[in-house]
Amino acid sequence: MSIPLNPRTLAFQLLFFISYSVLLVTSRTLPSISIPDDSHSNSNSQVFIWPLPSNFTFGNQTLSINPDLSLAVSGNGGNSGFLADAFDRYRRIIFKHESKLRRNVNVAYDIEKISVVVHSDDQELKLGVDESYSLLLGKGNGYSIVGEVTIEANTVYGALRGMETFSQLCDFNYETKTVQVYKAPWYISDKPKFVYRGLMLDTSRHYLPIDVIKHVIESMSYAKLNVFHWHIIDEESFPLEVPTYPNLWKGAYTKWERYTVEDANEIVSYARARGINVMAEIDVPGHAESWGAGYPDLWPSPSCREPLDVSKNSTFDVISGILTDMRKIFPFGLFHLGGDEVNTDCWNYTPHVKQWLHDHNMTTKDAYQYFVLRAQELAISKGYTPVNWEETFNTFSDKLNPRTVVHNWLGPGVCPKAVAKGFKCIYSNQGVWYLDHLDIPWYEYYNADPVEGITDASKQELVLGGEVCMWSETVDASNVQQTIWPRAAAAAERLWSNPESTSVGNSTSTVLSRYQYFRCLLTRRGVQAAPATNFYARRAPTGPGSCYEQ
Amino acid sequence: MSIPLNPRTLAFQLLFFISYSVLLVTSRTLPSISIPDDSHSNSNSQVFIWPLPSNFTFGNQTLSINPDLSLAVSGNGGNSGFLADAFDRYRRIIFKHESKLRRNVNVAYDIEKISVVVHSDDQELKLGVDESYSLLLGKGNGYSIVGEVTIEANTVYGALRGMETFSQLCDFNYETKTVQVYKAPWYISDKPKFVYRGLMLDTSRHYLPIDVIKHVIESMSYAKLNVFHWHIIDEESFPLEVPTYPNLWKGAYTKWERYTVEDANEIVSYARARGINVMAEIDVPGHAESWGAGYPDLWPSPSCREPLDVSKNSTFDVISGILTDMRKIFPFGLFHLGGDEVNTDCWNYTPHVKQWLHDHNMTTKDAYQYFVLRAQELAISKGYTPVNWEETFNTFSDKLNPRTVVHNWLGPGVCPKAVAKGFKCIYSNQGVWYLDHLDIPWYEYYNADPVEGITDASKQELVLGGEVCMWSETVDASNVQQTIWPRAAAAAERLWSNPESTSVGNSTSTVLSRYQYFRCLLTRRGVQAAPATNFYARRAPTGPGSCYEQ
Repeated sequence: MSIPLNPRTLAFQLLFFISYSVLLVTSRTLPSISIPDDSHSNSNSQVFIWPLPSNFTFGNQTLSINPDLSLAVSGNGGNSGFLADAFDRYRRIIFKHESKLRRNVNVAYDIEKISVVVHSDDQELKLGVDESYSLLLGKGNGYSIVGEVTIEANTVYGALRGMETFSQLCDFNYETKTVQVYKAPWYISDKPKFVYRGLMLDTSRHYLPIDVIKHVIESMSYAKLNVFHWHIIDEESFPLEVPTYPNLWKGAYTKWERYTVEDANEIVSYARARGINVMAEIDVPGHAESWGAGYPDLWPSPSCREPLDVSKNSTFDVISGILTDMRKIFPFGLFHLGGDEVNTDCWNYTPHVKQWLHDHNMTTKDAYQYFVLRAQELAISKGYTPVNWEETFNTFSDKLNPRTVVHNWLGPGVCPKAVAKGFKCIYSNQGVWYLDHLDIPWYEYYNADPVEGITDASKQELVLGGEVCMWSETVDASNVQQTIWPRAAAAAERLWSNPESTSVGNSTSTVLSRYQYFRCLLTRRGVQAAPATNFYARRAPTGPGSCYEQ
Repeated sequence: MSIPLNPRTLAFQLLFFISYSVLLVTSRTLPSISIPDDSHSNSNSQVFIWPLPSNFTFGNQTLSINPDLSLAVSGNGGNSGFLADAFDRYRRIIFKHESKLRRNVNVAYDIEKISVVVHSDDQELKLGVDESYSLLLGKGNGYSIVGEVTIEANTVYGALRGMETFSQLCDFNYETKTVQVYKAPWYISDKPKFVYRGLMLDTSRHYLPIDVIKHVIESMSYAKLNVFHWHIIDEESFPLEVPTYPNLWKGAYTKWERYTVEDANEIVSYARARGINVMAEIDVPGHAESWGAGYPDLWPSPSCREPLDVSKNSTFDVISGILTDMRKIFPFGLFHLGGDEVNTDCWNYTPHVKQWLHDHNMTTKDAYQYFVLRAQELAISKGYTPVNWEETFNTFSDKLNPRTVVHNWLGPGVCPKAVAKGFKCIYSNQGVWYLDHLDIPWYEYYNADPVEGITDASKQELVLGGEVCMWSETVDASNVQQTIWPRAAAAAERLWSNPESTSVGNSTSTVLSRYQYFRCLLTRRGVQAAPATNFYARRAPTGPGSCYEQ
């Protein structure tokens, strides 16, 4: 998966690295809690990058950044519009206090240019895409190297991660009124621990306008999350347009609470520009009552509205049609088929379904398995790898298609069982990573371990990563960001960073101030991240105070 | 204040009006509550414009709007960059579901152009600026009038209000995938009831990043509010840069929780582009403890940190210096000097202040009056009209500078007394318009009356309007919009619309559905407006459901 770094560039990096080696202090020794007003400066060795890079060194210089910072791109992937667009976004973030009125062209800045080298022109954003990057930031030393930032990556997506890191190094100094980087020179070599770092959003219990979904996706990129799992449809409403079955979105709450195909395309494109894949979900056969608003035949009967009618081929025709339409919108290789919380009781009470079960010599449990496997086959036939919630694995693991990705949620211990049987697994243990559980404090998110109970390295690799889940029974456009953040960031660092450098034991003494700093960074960027230290999530601050202490 | 409308344009309007008169239905008879999915269409006579225009008529046609809608400006004020910028903003709002991929140049749209006529080139945004506008929207009738929208106003600020109204008429139809206007043709002639329609924001109890302040200002423009009262400083923190006294912002919570002069300029400019004035406040002599972090001499003693030291001329030098600096930032004619909740006890316990009181033969109450009046004189000397909280009026109304604007907050009945003495007044009765009072339901906001108890029309005119107040003890960047909206909108309609057309008695049967619709409009525009019908403000929705029913 990894393309070797260009030897010439490596030599350049080495030269750069050595030329500053006298200044370097090796890091990853995170000292005691910082005082807010004094942190993020040279006098403090806390590193305020979230999630923490896997390897980094820093010095003790303070460098100023020219607000007219120029971008130079090179490498096979360098002419991507992605990079120019991302640079524009980050310029607005980094230089938001810069006023054109104030700019003085006679001021000399230490850093005038950002050079981005991208080696591969392959822009496919597939699972496991190379997100590694290296970042060098230093002042010119009078020889060949002028003061600049260099980001080098194998893919544009790695370069995006590097730009995010660069933006977090930049700090507006209110006294000098310049953007500064403390503790330069920096050398960062970074890559994620897990390939799948997700956030699930439920747009069925409450409809979320497309601007809100985009805002969630934008905020995910700040924490280097890379999969937006869109739980589009559930029993309460069916907001998405499905061209092949145009009555399905009659299951929307109202005529305004809908997503067109173009809206969905726009969301995929917006996410991709931030290195984020969109994994769509249609949750079958349970959690699907809303489907019948447009096509009542999908209901076994008016009094048995879910699970969907297993006895009719037309049910699977609809699923096939949806998947065909989805394939045109969602290019990501994984597609989530749900499969959770299926209560099949009413199949038994519906005469024609009962008859069908009898004719096929099936119990309702058999029929549940039949339904899931048939939906899996349909997804595979469209080119998707199916993902299913863990109940499918728990109920008939031996029958499940071997390509299935098992999505844990009920509790700990499922991924060890799944990978033992050769399945890939995504970790979302509800006891620690369900965002709608408002009583889970941040350090429980932080201390979670997706590979807990798996010692064999080859089996650990089958754990793709994990995902925090935002079910929206009590979440709408007014409070979704507040419920997601900052706790999702605690999981994001667990999924990106080395466990060794983000040790669990001293999380409150060293991590808390970094976590609070990142929460405040989110609020500066317009994300409604709730106070970090309230026990219950999304609670209002209890009284006046600094963002950095609440 | 009002410039007569151009007779030629009036004739054009009349022609237009007559040509459609067969279709017209007179409105302002607001019928019973609408069913969400059926409202906002021709079959329902509810009018979903918030705040409700003062005069309007509509028909029963549905017209489509070209996503490439062109803007034509004319009149003496027509070449303002304001209009082009505002048009760009509203295009993004109105056509957010439009995809370039979908556009078909062969489709014929009913409305191709928006014509904006602005008669005056005076762009000063002063108190009482003419915000009236008329809006005509209709299909071409085969003669001289092509299908278009015409907005006519005396000032660019009136035109901005008209654009907001136009944006609220536009509805994306998910079936046809076009933006449509129902119930055309429309003729709207609109102007505000009150000249001062404010929202106060406290950035001292919690610092709010500039992006958050801008977002609040943007959202105000959707409800046609026009004064952003910036309660910048209080006892907890002093975030603002004051060049003349550069240590003052050492009273900020941290080095990051600050506003530069350039930030403040940017906020003023951002607000002005939306027709919103910024009224700054420095609250003296109480609520000022944070001043002493940079200049401890402002404290009477270390154990008496407020009210500010009345005995020293240097205290007034600092106030004068601040006002001189503020005058360069805040061009609005009103400046708020606070004056509320002044507990002067510790002046009596501070030896040098006690001596000074004795030497000047003053009680502490006299000294409070002396302080307020001296600060007023300073503000007036810089060209400002002083605004003070009502305690100043309640305590020494006969001494108060006659130009004082009295800002009510403690309860009802103050504006009647103030206007009886010839003072101007702003209504903010905390029992109905304090947003931090989470137990005030929306209809209490809606039923409030700024001129309650004032029958004489000439005295009513002294009530400039009113303001909802967002004190931020438990409000930060994570929940400020959620606490402001949607309740602030209930006050906004009271301040803009005719009391007759928004009758109080039937507010739950006719206004509630309009109010819920506006709340959902806010969420579609990315504003975190909380559910409308929860009794307590900013509460999460209690369960799944449509935005339009919660």
